[in-house]
Amino acid sequence: MDLLNEKFLKLGVENAPGQETLQNTTEIKQHEEKLSGTPVDFSHGDVDAFQPIPGTLDVFISGVHLGAKQAYTEYRGSKIIREDAAQKLANFTGATINADRNIIITPGTQGALFLAMGSAVARGDKVAIVAPDYFANRKLVEFFDGEAVPIQMDYFNATDCAGLDLNQLEAAFKAGAKLFLFSNPNNPTGVMYSQAEICGIGELAQKYGATVIADELYSRQIFEGRTYTHLCTQNLIDPEKLITITGPSKTESLSGYRLGVAFGSGTIIDRMEKLQAIVSLRAGGYSQAVMQSWFAEPDGWMAQRIAEHQAIRDDLLTKLRSVEGVKVRTTEAGSYLFPSIPALDITIKEFVKILRLQADVTVTPGTEFGSQFTSSFRINFSQDHQAAAAAIDRLIKVMNQHRK
Amino acid sequence: MDLLNEKFLKLGVENAPGQETLQNTTEIKQHEEKLSGTPVDFSHGDVDAFQPIPGTLDVFISGVHLGAKQAYTEYRGSKIIREDAAQKLANFTGATINADRNIIITPGTQGALFLAMGSAVARGDKVAIVAPDYFANRKLVEFFDGEAVPIQMDYFNATDCAGLDLNQLEAAFKAGAKLFLFSNPNNPTGVMYSQAEICGIGELAQKYGATVIADELYSRQIFEGRTYTHLCTQNLIDPEKLITITGPSKTESLSGYRLGVAFGSGTIIDRMEKLQAIVSLRAGGYSQAVMQSWFAEPDGWMAQRIAEHQAIRDDLLTKLRSVEGVKVRTTEAGSYLFPSIPALDITIKEFVKILRLQADVTVTPGTEFGSQFTSSFRINFSQDHQAAAAAIDRLIKVMNQHRK
Repeated sequence: MDLLNEKFLKLGVENAPGQETLQNTTEIKQHEEKLSGTPVDFSHGDVDAFQPIPGTLDVFISGVHLGAKQAYTEYRGSKIIREDAAQKLANFTGATINADRNIIITPGTQGALFLAMGSAVARGDKVAIVAPDYFANRKLVEFFDGEAVPIQMDYFNATDCAGLDLNQLEAAFKAGAKLFLFSNPNNPTGVMYSQAEICGIGELAQKYGATVIADELYSRQIFEGRTYTHLCTQNLIDPEKLITITGPSKTESLSGYRLGVAFGSGTIIDRMEKLQAIVSLRAGGYSQAVMQSWFAEPDGWMAQRIAEHQAIRDDLLTKLRSVEGVKVRTTEAGSYLFPSIPALDITIKEFVKILRLQADVTVTPGTEFGSQFTSSFRINFSQDHQAAAAAIDRLIKVMNQHRK
Repeated sequence: MDLLNEKFLKLGVENAPGQETLQNTTEIKQHEEKLSGTPVDFSHGDVDAFQPIPGTLDVFISGVHLGAKQAYTEYRGSKIIREDAAQKLANFTGATINADRNIIITPGTQGALFLAMGSAVARGDKVAIVAPDYFANRKLVEFFDGEAVPIQMDYFNATDCAGLDLNQLEAAFKAGAKLFLFSNPNNPTGVMYSQAEICGIGELAQKYGATVIADELYSRQIFEGRTYTHLCTQNLIDPEKLITITGPSKTESLSGYRLGVAFGSGTIIDRMEKLQAIVSLRAGGYSQAVMQSWFAEPDGWMAQRIAEHQAIRDDLLTKLRSVEGVKVRTTEAGSYLFPSIPALDITIKEFVKILRLQADVTVTPGTEFGSQFTSSFRINFSQDHQAAAAAIDRLIKVMNQHRK
């Protein structure tokens, strides 16, 4: 069991978003008085503040009433649901998606990511991943016995682009990396890749015969003045070497139904289905019905949601930028901010614990997104506007108490 | 990708239960006329014929109305739901289950099985599995790069027990197997292990320091005159070396909600949660609420369900046993029959395809449960009684047409 011990030691969850109650906080001595206010959990969006697409529960209930044929679908998802989703995603991205061959419904986008990685990463494979990027990416590479090759993203100094170091990416491909995994918009920074960057990724992958997994989970929530580029419609990569992941869990607040989608390479989708057969059989049958409310929101619903999020973003940015030593790039899409903070007399993990105990504010330490992010934290600002603003005030107070 | 190609070639799904529409049937030439009748899919239970526990949808809807706290639970499942499930399973099995340390809610029992295997099987490990047993067991060993050591179960000749070869099991442990995985009642045969067999398994595992995963998915649906023995209450194995898997998906017809449970070893449960964090985050949040209707069925509901299944079983047994060359052991628990049939002029996989095309009857080939079961098939008789009986008549006709 030594191999396994080692593997599972690397798979810690106590600092992962949503797992904060597992944290050992006995070592924390509170010297400062409690700061009162509405508790805010910035580790994920608040589906009470931003509710699911109207009518979703009714669609679910109709699925239950369909009975056996909705409860037991093919492992890749009900044919009717796949056809509907393929059409909607084709309209959204501009890609051609064959509902029989090129799409799979999964238990959340996390499920899609796991299946895609399990289908593409063999023992010892080098996998290029971005720093910073979604916390599970590194863990997936480790679990499948691959070797992560970090590609830096200089998100603070880049303008009009994410700041991906394409030279590093090329070096990784030259050194044998056969897979590149990235989220766009980037989680945790909320920046988007420019069209030039996306084309750079596509050209390099094609040149070196690499496979790309593009996690586009937040690609519908784009803020004013920004344009999104889907890699899958640039016609740069062999379509059998590209998988795009998305789903209705975030912007649409449907996380509780656990739904995700992957589309692209038929070869990889086939493998993903084989793997899904032993991982969880299928996305919950009745939940699959909920895919029908996706991209079928009431007129204006999405525009209003985006405007409300942009207003929260702007308030929090103003507050954070008023603090000496805090740097934060403006979110271009999605609901994340990833500020860097001044030197403190405690580690970022201690700061996160103290903040939760003293101020009822939960954030995710930067180290979850790359070991070097020791002075950053991530917040998901899809929250009640007033509560979020007040929570950031408390966060700033705690930060100032621990300034070096 | 050579390692992966090899791995995924072994993970075929076209003959797996529920995947029959993927089968290539172009090679099948139908010489005989179509046999008409209500289509019956014996590859899984029919939740239209045997409906979910009454009130389940209402419990789900209440979960949705709880909002954020039900949508985002800890990865191992909502604390309230875990406490409720731990208490119910303690009452049912007699085991002591700590809700914080010793239980995890998963996306279906398939999810629990995958997480438990991923937490216990390292590359190169020998894993003892029963032949025949659940089709995913071998695939899981292969996926995690283990080596399956088959332990024969002589289910036709054993009386008052399953017929497990405990000498083979001891030999496997002596040869270095550190894990034994088995389903009780056995899938696909529907036989139960006797108390002596369960104690034999427990004593051997303890003697050789092996871990055991006991899949008890069907342990509530026990037919007249039989007694079930839970390994977890025999006090023979170090509790840190035992995981028991169950869930409300089968007997209770809640498959569409994708819920499973594993309880036992805190060390393994911790690993399972770490793995769940990258596999699918959690069992669907709203679905978790449905656990509350489990073990809370209306008075008499379960007894009636068992009686109805026993009546179907008895009818099908009479029909099958009237055919020369068919052997079938009586199901003792659960809803499976695993008959062996006389020599045919076609393979079992061809028989399964022809049966579906010619008679609208879907069964699962025996080879899914062990490569040597080339003249057996599995049926799940949790179906409309009349339709199932008529389907077995059609099955017998097709079988006789192909008798050697």
